[in-house]
Amino acid sequence: MEKVREIVREGRRVAKEDPRRVVHSFKVGLVLALVSSFYYYQPLYDSFGVNAMWAVMTVVVVFEFSVGATLGKGLNRVAATLFAGGLGIGAHHLASMSGPTGEPILLAIFVFVQAALSTFVRFFPRVKARYDYSLLIFILTFALISVSGFREEQVVMLTHKRISTVIIGGLSCVLISIFVCPVWAGQDLHSLLASNFEKLSFFLLDFGDKYCEVVENDDTKEVDKRKKDFDNYKSVLNSKSNEESLANFAKWEPGHGQFRFRHPWKQYLAVGELIRQCAYRIHTLNSSYLNADNKVSIDIKKKLGEPLRRMSLESGKAMKEMSISLKKMTKPSSSDLHVQNARSASKSLTNLLNSGILKEVEPLELVSLLTAISLLIDIINLTEKILEALHELASAAKFKNKIEQPLFSEKQKAKSFVSLRSIKCHDEHVVTIIEDDGNNHDTSKNDNRSKEVSIHEKHEDGDTHVHARCVSCGHTIVCDVVECR
Amino acid sequence: MEKVREIVREGRRVAKEDPRRVVHSFKVGLVLALVSSFYYYQPLYDSFGVNAMWAVMTVVVVFEFSVGATLGKGLNRVAATLFAGGLGIGAHHLASMSGPTGEPILLAIFVFVQAALSTFVRFFPRVKARYDYSLLIFILTFALISVSGFREEQVVMLTHKRISTVIIGGLSCVLISIFVCPVWAGQDLHSLLASNFEKLSFFLLDFGDKYCEVVENDDTKEVDKRKKDFDNYKSVLNSKSNEESLANFAKWEPGHGQFRFRHPWKQYLAVGELIRQCAYRIHTLNSSYLNADNKVSIDIKKKLGEPLRRMSLESGKAMKEMSISLKKMTKPSSSDLHVQNARSASKSLTNLLNSGILKEVEPLELVSLLTAISLLIDIINLTEKILEALHELASAAKFKNKIEQPLFSEKQKAKSFVSLRSIKCHDEHVVTIIEDDGNNHDTSKNDNRSKEVSIHEKHEDGDTHVHARCVSCGHTIVCDVVECR
Repeated sequence: MEKVREIVREGRRVAKEDPRRVVHSFKVGLVLALVSSFYYYQPLYDSFGVNAMWAVMTVVVVFEFSVGATLGKGLNRVAATLFAGGLGIGAHHLASMSGPTGEPILLAIFVFVQAALSTFVRFFPRVKARYDYSLLIFILTFALISVSGFREEQVVMLTHKRISTVIIGGLSCVLISIFVCPVWAGQDLHSLLASNFEKLSFFLLDFGDKYCEVVENDDTKEVDKRKKDFDNYKSVLNSKSNEESLANFAKWEPGHGQFRFRHPWKQYLAVGELIRQCAYRIHTLNSSYLNADNKVSIDIKKKLGEPLRRMSLESGKAMKEMSISLKKMTKPSSSDLHVQNARSASKSLTNLLNSGILKEVEPLELVSLLTAISLLIDIINLTEKILEALHELASAAKFKNKIEQPLFSEKQKAKSFVSLRSIKCHDEHVVTIIEDDGNNHDTSKNDNRSKEVSIHEKHEDGDTHVHARCVSCGHTIVCDVVECR
Repeated sequence: MEKVREIVREGRRVAKEDPRRVVHSFKVGLVLALVSSFYYYQPLYDSFGVNAMWAVMTVVVVFEFSVGATLGKGLNRVAATLFAGGLGIGAHHLASMSGPTGEPILLAIFVFVQAALSTFVRFFPRVKARYDYSLLIFILTFALISVSGFREEQVVMLTHKRISTVIIGGLSCVLISIFVCPVWAGQDLHSLLASNFEKLSFFLLDFGDKYCEVVENDDTKEVDKRKKDFDNYKSVLNSKSNEESLANFAKWEPGHGQFRFRHPWKQYLAVGELIRQCAYRIHTLNSSYLNADNKVSIDIKKKLGEPLRRMSLESGKAMKEMSISLKKMTKPSSSDLHVQNARSASKSLTNLLNSGILKEVEPLELVSLLTAISLLIDIINLTEKILEALHELASAAKFKNKIEQPLFSEKQKAKSFVSLRSIKCHDEHVVTIIEDDGNNHDTSKNDNRSKEVSIHEKHEDGDTHVHARCVSCGHTIVCDVVECR
């Protein structure tokens, strides 16, 4: 009884985690019941007979969770069946010419050679990645067709029926999976990447604060909570195989929503790899910071705390903004600011270090402290690389140019209205300035919206220039301030 | 033509990488040709008829590369077919009682409910990991049996034939895969772990030397070579899924060679996870050391070089010894010494740091230098943890106690013969002392070989004690030197 209740609980958890699983189960049941009608409905049974079982078999094996996987498997299966069917008929003809004693021997040799060769080809890495299933079906169909041909009189008829039922089964799977609550592998890959960004941002947003306060509230409860919050990023470490299989499936998918047929899935993998590189650093930072035998004294933490905190916070914000812009499929413009802030924080930290602040620190404290700093700098470098890769992805995938309302509120409070003259970027784009509040106040008379720049550093009274990035080509431009309201 | 030549070249590479692949291909061809004889040989065809195709199908689908995978799939398939066959007959009987109009409707409902439910259960993580294939076959067989029962008069007979052929097909796969050049997943997991150890050792053995000489020969050729040598460890970063699937297969395998049926595969996964943790650190060390903007001056490297080099060298030696003792399935006794040496090197480095050597170093140099040191210390800590886990694995797997000839020759040159009195370890084991050269010179009169200790620190004239580890319980004991030759 307890066991049953546990299974029900587990079932609820599985369904809650991803409700599309329940829908998928219904879809499979539906298609299978539909295809079974080949047996029940007399006219259909008259034309296909026992071969109808191939439709049932195809549905069970081909219907996968995502559209891409189903399409890939379905197309692979149909193509392999067609090809192997043709070859099987040929083999059967060739064998039957050699008389009743030679035929079984020749057939056995054909089956042996074909199976051994195809099995070997399945070990080729490129074949294994994409066509493993085709080859399985190829071996199967060839053996069945050539061998049953030995007993059946009308091999061509048999093959024809078998292929038709396979096509019917495959087609019903594909149609149902596309038109009834589709699950797109591409969409899943997209969301996986966005959530990976978010997981890293969770760590980075909190790390600075926790690192600087770690000695004060060191009770186990706090440590447990921190550990749980931080552990989120660990799933990123092993996401490679998942990302790769999703990208493989996504390649089969037709255009859907904002994803085109030839969406740049390769770029997704590149960004994913960089995120994973960053996760390795975070993992090292987390373990050596949690397990540090030589705790760094509060004194030195207070002195270095401000830039250290800002470095971690700003790279966390950049990650968060990238996650959001990926989710909304807009160009990641607001992250640039945060990366620049993190860079400038790391510069002020370097200046602080150069000012001789380290002279009084114990060597063992130094090791722990400087490792954390060095890893943070490494993480900021990677964040910049990730941002670059995401910019590439965004332009390859033709993400929208819309400038998002910045996420972090302190920036909105501090926004300043700046009026700037039209300027030219390196590539001779005429750029028009819009304000930081995201409402696209056009201050120049140039109407060409595609050549706007967004202001990336707040203008403060007294400064004579601000930094801006050309939306067309991505260059950073320094603009003179004309008027400040 | 060029394309064909390329395929042949690729084929040769694939075969050379693992010659067992060629053998496997032959085995598959052989079994398939064998099972096809069901069609050719009249008496066999008389008893099974078209159902013989199920044997062919089972062979194609079940025959996997390793024994464990084949056994797991075969058993899963037979069990699922039996169970689904029984249920299918039941469903058929139940439906046939409701008359000719009700029967197809009821059958369709059964198929729908069974398929939807089983598909949902496949999403349960624990089911997915081990029984995914069973459930696929369960859905398939249930649908085919209950539905073809609608047309066939003798469902029980049909089911009986189908199950027999599935069993025959499965059995031939299992027998051939076990008795003809078997590929054991357990053996593969074992070798994978040993090679992962080796990959990390390659990096660590060279890192110290290369780090200390990096500025002198900085030509691109050297950098390229170093990069290639070092890149070996990267495959360890993503070995998790491979290790897990091998362990899953290995669980199905019967005892073979030195592996028992219930070999501690879980412990293998634990050791593998720790190796991966170490690889993350090595990856960080490698990237931040190769990309260091602030190169550390030769001057300071020379001062710290000796202990730094020893730390990396000794942990690399420990890894190498662990790799060898895992390969030979002996207890990893000689690694203990190297870990202790690495520890003592890290202690002398710490002393050196405390002596004020860092006072003259530029802060930015410091960041780069101390990060490398801190990561090395981290790696040594992990090496010790890995060694512990390997000791556990060794005693769980009942590895031999034989003390290996130490691998690294410089130790043999420097060996010193020490004669010690018998002492007692904490747990009251009487321990007998053997020398460092691995030749088991017994200097006491105690004959109990299982209670030996190996000497872990070389005795130098003037010292009055050496460290030893009790082989029975693992405790480190300090022994007084009685006589020194």
